[in-house]
Amino acid sequence: MNYRIIFNTLGKVALVLSALLILPLIISASLGDGCWWSFGITILASAALGFTLMFALKPKNSVFFSKEGVIIVALAWIYVSAIGALPFVISGEIPFYIDALFETTSGFSTTGATILTGEQIENMSISLLFWRSFTHWIGGMGVIVLVMAVMTGTAERGMHILRAEMPGPTVDKIVPRARGTAKILYLIYIGMTIVEIIALIISGMPVFDSIVHAFGTAGAGGFGIRADSIASYSNASQWVITVFMLLFGVNFNLYYLLILRRFRSAFGSRELWIYCGVVVVFSTAVAINVTNQLPFTQGANDGIRHAIFQVVSFVTTTGYSTIPSTSSLNNLPLLSKGLLFVLLFIGGCAGSTAGGLKISRVALLGCAIKKELRRILHPRNANAVKFEGKTVTDEQLHGVTSYFALYILLIAFLFVILSFDNAAGLSIEANLSLSASCVNNVGHAFGVAANGCHMYSWVSKLAMTFAMMFGRLEIYPLLLTLSPLTWIKK
Amino acid sequence: MNYRIIFNTLGKVALVLSALLILPLIISASLGDGCWWSFGITILASAALGFTLMFALKPKNSVFFSKEGVIIVALAWIYVSAIGALPFVISGEIPFYIDALFETTSGFSTTGATILTGEQIENMSISLLFWRSFTHWIGGMGVIVLVMAVMTGTAERGMHILRAEMPGPTVDKIVPRARGTAKILYLIYIGMTIVEIIALIISGMPVFDSIVHAFGTAGAGGFGIRADSIASYSNASQWVITVFMLLFGVNFNLYYLLILRRFRSAFGSRELWIYCGVVVVFSTAVAINVTNQLPFTQGANDGIRHAIFQVVSFVTTTGYSTIPSTSSLNNLPLLSKGLLFVLLFIGGCAGSTAGGLKISRVALLGCAIKKELRRILHPRNANAVKFEGKTVTDEQLHGVTSYFALYILLIAFLFVILSFDNAAGLSIEANLSLSASCVNNVGHAFGVAANGCHMYSWVSKLAMTFAMMFGRLEIYPLLLTLSPLTWIKK
Repeated sequence: MNYRIIFNTLGKVALVLSALLILPLIISASLGDGCWWSFGITILASAALGFTLMFALKPKNSVFFSKEGVIIVALAWIYVSAIGALPFVISGEIPFYIDALFETTSGFSTTGATILTGEQIENMSISLLFWRSFTHWIGGMGVIVLVMAVMTGTAERGMHILRAEMPGPTVDKIVPRARGTAKILYLIYIGMTIVEIIALIISGMPVFDSIVHAFGTAGAGGFGIRADSIASYSNASQWVITVFMLLFGVNFNLYYLLILRRFRSAFGSRELWIYCGVVVVFSTAVAINVTNQLPFTQGANDGIRHAIFQVVSFVTTTGYSTIPSTSSLNNLPLLSKGLLFVLLFIGGCAGSTAGGLKISRVALLGCAIKKELRRILHPRNANAVKFEGKTVTDEQLHGVTSYFALYILLIAFLFVILSFDNAAGLSIEANLSLSASCVNNVGHAFGVAANGCHMYSWVSKLAMTFAMMFGRLEIYPLLLTLSPLTWIKK
Repeated sequence: MNYRIIFNTLGKVALVLSALLILPLIISASLGDGCWWSFGITILASAALGFTLMFALKPKNSVFFSKEGVIIVALAWIYVSAIGALPFVISGEIPFYIDALFETTSGFSTTGATILTGEQIENMSISLLFWRSFTHWIGGMGVIVLVMAVMTGTAERGMHILRAEMPGPTVDKIVPRARGTAKILYLIYIGMTIVEIIALIISGMPVFDSIVHAFGTAGAGGFGIRADSIASYSNASQWVITVFMLLFGVNFNLYYLLILRRFRSAFGSRELWIYCGVVVVFSTAVAINVTNQLPFTQGANDGIRHAIFQVVSFVTTTGYSTIPSTSSLNNLPLLSKGLLFVLLFIGGCAGSTAGGLKISRVALLGCAIKKELRRILHPRNANAVKFEGKTVTDEQLHGVTSYFALYILLIAFLFVILSFDNAAGLSIEANLSLSASCVNNVGHAFGVAANGCHMYSWVSKLAMTFAMMFGRLEIYPLLLTLSPLTWIKK
């Protein structure tokens, strides 16, 4: 194990986190909302730790393997969540540390579940609201990807790290070097976020709100600043968010292909078409189901807008909602709720900021089933299955199917822990959909009020915190870091 | 495709069904409950069809493969369910055919879900109640296994059939020939059923009730004859049922090993110990959780009895309940409900009459995950994983993990169909637990009244009917029979 390179990289992560916190510090100082020192203390602490780790532990060599890659990613995410929570605690706006950790992890993991009530959100300081949503934006594309993009000297075998942090069953290098790939991804990400901010401002949303919601959309997070999420903004703003949620749910490699004018490759993506198909089919069903169902909709236009928004919000695991505050997702007709519940699990495209299983992983599960059916019919023939024009190897199929088993196990495990809670109003439906929601980084749950996480005990909140991080990193990095298998010498 | 052997075997199935229906016919005639002719007509129809198929289509050769095996099993199960439903319709006691089909399939698949209300069950004719529970007993060990045990001339490669019908990821031959294996299994099954009937009678249960509940226990079914399931019988009777549910959830091969005095092999089964461990852990948790929770329990003894009964009933997918009629499973404390909900999925041992995923399949899923974790850590080392002392092949792991994906997909698919229903009182919890309950052949669901299936539309009932059969046959036989892959010539 190359401990030095692990700690060195963690040092870089600490420095980058300090740098990122300067933005809310400036906002706080210029607005005079009295929170600037809570950011200041955190910046100093993280910077001090970062310099210590970077200079005290210079790596002797840059050789490292998949093992070091997953450990770096796991520790980096634990670090940014643990330290990123401090401004909330120091400012006293979320006094209990586990609550703040929950909120920050929900931010970085782009889940968007909150332990705050609607009222608490609306009364929070502007700079903290900014930081809360900014974590979505950072977490969406990835903490380590950002570190690799902005700092030189990251190990040569950076693809191990990129692979451990990027969502989806496979990761393609856009350009030969990991650092180049990270830079391109972040440039596309920044560009699209700026376009969304402008579009939201044009649609009539105030500037600060536009920035916050663009962060939430870009990261597929879902933190807002109003108790009723997006419901009280104009229809135009809702449509802008719908379009951008959809766009951020697409594999970013496809945007790079578009920039290179390789349109045929970009639009030839099987995953893209399945993704669009899922959105069209589910939106149609939900639209028919909710149209003229007061208090949600008053006519087909209203029904279509709500249906597409909610479907896109769930499939991209963003978690914004346009359901008016007089009602909630729980009052939707049963078919719509059932379909949205299924969407909790699917998620967007691999290589996007969306969470969930990812479309391509679901498709590969289908390939595995197809292969097994063929094997039963013709036990002696080895039949290859294809996806995206390439033959899928047994190793890939095994990777996807065992990931799926682990993923369901994780949801079940969280569900059992949540079942120990006995606050009034909790149910199997609430616990199960909240478990799925945390692991898939959606943020919405059924059978419990929209902001219902504060009802749970601190043990459950801590379990959900870990589950969100597990979900964002697709389980393996954290699990391997916690597993003795990783640390025992052969 | 060897069509002749398929139809010939179906003919045998039809004859065996006729023979089995003679038992309720005799009961009906001797009690004079006026249903004898509904059995008589069914017997004549099935016998006529059986003879036609057997003699008109004599097989030219007995060569057949896995493909024919799965088709025979699928068609046999569709046949017995479709024809076995006729007495209910002809007698007028379940006038609507799809309802009768649901009830019969629920019987053969040993699910125990019912479209009847408690009142309707208590008013049903004795001979029909007997037939209803008898289907559990037949379905538990398997229709085709029975045909193979009693009729000669079944094809030499009978293991293909046995394998398609027996639950669990792998099937061991007890003796070299399939027919011998089938006979031994049925003898053990009959022996244990008789012992249970006697034990129930001794515990103070009336004779007819003892027979019916022994059938329900043996098949891991769960049909009873009272509106409150087992709740109103004595504690002694409840304990007898608990013990036998547990015993019928064990792999029958182990009983054969016991008969052969190979105790070390029998008690060395890893699956057996995991099964016992699950029961002990879950029972303890539920017992602590429900003790002194009125109206269920009044003291530790009561709590332990209810806890063990419910846990065993769920893990063996039987579905009997001791919860008093003044209450229901829905009123259990949330932790108990949550744990039972998880048990909905696990199921008993492979090679038992229990449904669900099966303990050994869950263990193999664990092996697949372990293997994948090792692969990520040491990409170049091929590490073998072991279960029950044997190295698990990649093919077995792939089989189990893709089965799991298909299984979750099936539950999700049924869930979406059920979501189209909009009767009052239905919820995500009800639809989801009922979907899992059908596919796992449990029969119980949460969030809906114990006998809530009558609330659903005929489309949903038909979907549940298929799901129960899919679950009992572990998906592949029915899916392959319905799949074009099977019928297209290469």
